[in-house]
Order: sequence, then structure tokens, then C-alpha cells
Amino acid sequence: MVERGLLIVFSGPSGVGKGTVRKAVFDHADCKIRYSVSMTTRPQRPGEVDGKDYFFRSREFFEDTVRNGQMLEYAEYVGNYYGTPLASVNQLLDEGFDVMLEIEVQGALQVKEKVPDGVFIFLTPPDLHELRQRLQERGTDDRKAIEGRMVKAREEIHMMSAYDYVVVNDVVDLAAERVKKIIETEHYRVERVIGKYEAMLDDLDKA
Amino acid sequence: MVERGLLIVFSGPSGVGKGTVRKAVFDHADCKIRYSVSMTTRPQRPGEVDGKDYFFRSREFFEDTVRNGQMLEYAEYVGNYYGTPLASVNQLLDEGFDVMLEIEVQGALQVKEKVPDGVFIFLTPPDLHELRQRLQERGTDDRKAIEGRMVKAREEIHMMSAYDYVVVNDVVDLAAERVKKIIETEHYRVERVIGKYEAMLDDLDKA
Repeated sequence: MVERGLLIVFSGPSGVGKGTVRKAVFDHADCKIRYSVSMTTRPQRPGEVDGKDYFFRSREFFEDTVRNGQMLEYAEYVGNYYGTPLASVNQLLDEGFDVMLEIEVQGALQVKEKVPDGVFIFLTPPDLHELRQRLQERGTDDRKAIEGRMVKAREEIHMMSAYDYVVVNDVVDLAAERVKKIIETEHYRVERVIGKYEAMLDDLDKA
Repeated sequence: MVERGLLIVFSGPSGVGKGTVRKAVFDHADCKIRYSVSMTTRPQRPGEVDGKDYFFRSREFFEDTVRNGQMLEYAEYVGNYYGTPLASVNQLLDEGFDVMLEIEVQGALQVKEKVPDGVFIFLTPPDLHELRQRLQERGTDDRKAIEGRMVKAREEIHMMSAYDYVVVNDVVDLAAERVKKIIETEHYRVERVIGKYEAMLDDLDKA
């Protein structure tokens, strides 16, 4: 029997570089990870391939999919729908692949409710990490800009608490390495392997 | 202020190769890990160094240390005491080092009660038959002791559920790599970093 894969939810604030880091993960991926292709109602752009970049579908089709409970998560953004079709994710997981979603924070929270044993990774900008230092050099920023950053930092830290891991996107390749290590080590977590060992003991008892 | 290190509890059935894997972790360790040297009453084996492999002490000395509350954990195993002196562990953690204990299962469960946020790693043989073989090859134990340890190993595998991670000792260097990745990724866990971000915001509010 094939062991079911892990659902990896890769998320973080808009503009943090999720797409770039995700691509770096897959560029060097030697492990069994698959990327889940999202469905969208936005128009196909030149060079984009249906079924590879996105599944490009009509609003009607998308809304039907949602109504039928066939969407793991979805969101409306600038007038278009974006979502993760449930069927394709489940098929890959059943085949033993780890499936990685790259989605916005709202969507990640929807997935967390439905798949609590997923692996939730929050990508955070280095400027949050370096916030203290940068604010100390406040001669370069006016007070309003500083307050704006503070509000944003607060929101981001609040979002973090729903996730399992925080990865700082300081250097893309380093961030991608951290993500890959997290995915690997999650496979060693007791709650994910103990069933296999219990079965092995049962076999020895029968022998 | 220095961030307190992680307490890594590395454990598993007797004869699984904890010492060998632990040494391989430290041979290539580039991160801030320190090994906590255990105290034992068992006789020193050829090649073992006092204060490096173990603190080799008398039963009387060991029991005094326990009575004075100076032992993080201890166990009697095959007629000898093994234990972890508390003071040296706390000092290293306070200095910001991750501290790795290599201890028996009984002791690990004691540490779990006292330090629930430690990282508990269980090293396991590819299967139990192989465990028996390894014990025989070590050649230091008679047949009866080997049988006793087999029974104990079964119990210990049932105890896996108290740990956070299971690492298979198939190839020593691979097992050591897995342990190092686990230690690294534990530093990215939200519950370990969110306090740092929250404290940073508090400091900024005061400034």
C-alpha cells in the first residue's frame, strides 16, 4: 500500500516572494513533491498553458465547483476567482506524492480548517526580521511610513500563529532549502509514522 | 539577550546505534549543538574516555547526586545507573547552545515530564531482527542479556508515541543528516519564534 503524501500549504503576506521560493523548491526537488495547479477565472495570458499554470475556467464553472464542495479553498481577488480543486489534490496525495499549495493567507486558513494535519509554512519578509534595526535608523523615514510598517508587521505576526513554521525569505535559495528540510522532517514526525511501526510489531507477533 | 537553545533528547532501544549516530551528528555539526555528557556507574569500556563518553562514577556518588536533585533524569539499566547532570545542561542552554542528550527511553520519559518543549527524537532499527543481530555482533553481552533486551526493545517501540520524531538508523550518515535537519527545522516552528517577534513589537511600542 502506498503511504499517503503530505499536504504542504505554503503561504505568507502578498509580495513576500512565495512564487519565487516555490519555484526554487521545485527546481532542485529530488523528493516526491508535486505542485497543485490552481483553478482561476482570470483570462489566460500569452504563454500560459491551461492545466499547467492554471486551469482556466468560466465563472459559472468555478461557482459550480464551489457549490459541489469540490474546492479545497478559494478566494476572489481583483474581480477573479482563484481556488484549489479538491479532486486533483486528493489523487496526488493518494498516489503518495507530497502536494504543495502556494496560496494567500485567507485560503491557507480555509485549508487549515479542512486539513488540520497539513504542514503550514509561513514565508516572512526579512524586513520584518530587521524591523527593529531599520526603525532605529528612523532619520530616513517619516513618522507615518514607520507607523504603516508597524501596522503591517502586527498583522503579519498575527497571521503567523495559525501556521506550523516560519521561514524568513532573506535569500531565495536558502529559504527554499529550509522549506525542503521542513517537508522532509515532517515525514519523521511520530504521528505520521507510528501506525507503520505498530503494524510491524503485529507482524512479528504473528511470526 | 541570548536566545535559549533547544533541548534535544536523542533516544531509542539499546543497541540501535545511538552513540554512533550521535557521534556522526557532531562530526559534521556546523550548528550550535553541544553534547551533554551523561554520568554512569557502568564499567568503562576499552577506548572510552571519562568526561567525554561518560562521567564514570561510583554508585554512591551517583545516588548522592540524585538525592541532591541535581539529575535531570536517570535510570537503572542492566544493573547500572545512567543519568544527566542538570547544571551543565542548563548552563549550555542559557548560553544559547542546543543541547543534545543521548539517553535511554526511561530517562527520556522523565525529561519529557520536566521539559515538555524539548525535541524528542527516537532512533529505531530498520526492524527488530536486525536489532538482535547488532546486539550479537557487539559481543559484549551473553545470550540471556540479549533476549532481555529484545523484550525491552518491543516495549520501547511501543513508547515511541511519547516522542516527536522517529529516525530510522539504516545508514549512520543518513540518520545523522536526518537528526541535524530535525534540529534545524525545529528552530523554524512557530511556537519557538513567535515570542521573539512579539517581544520585538513590544520593544518598539516602548521606544
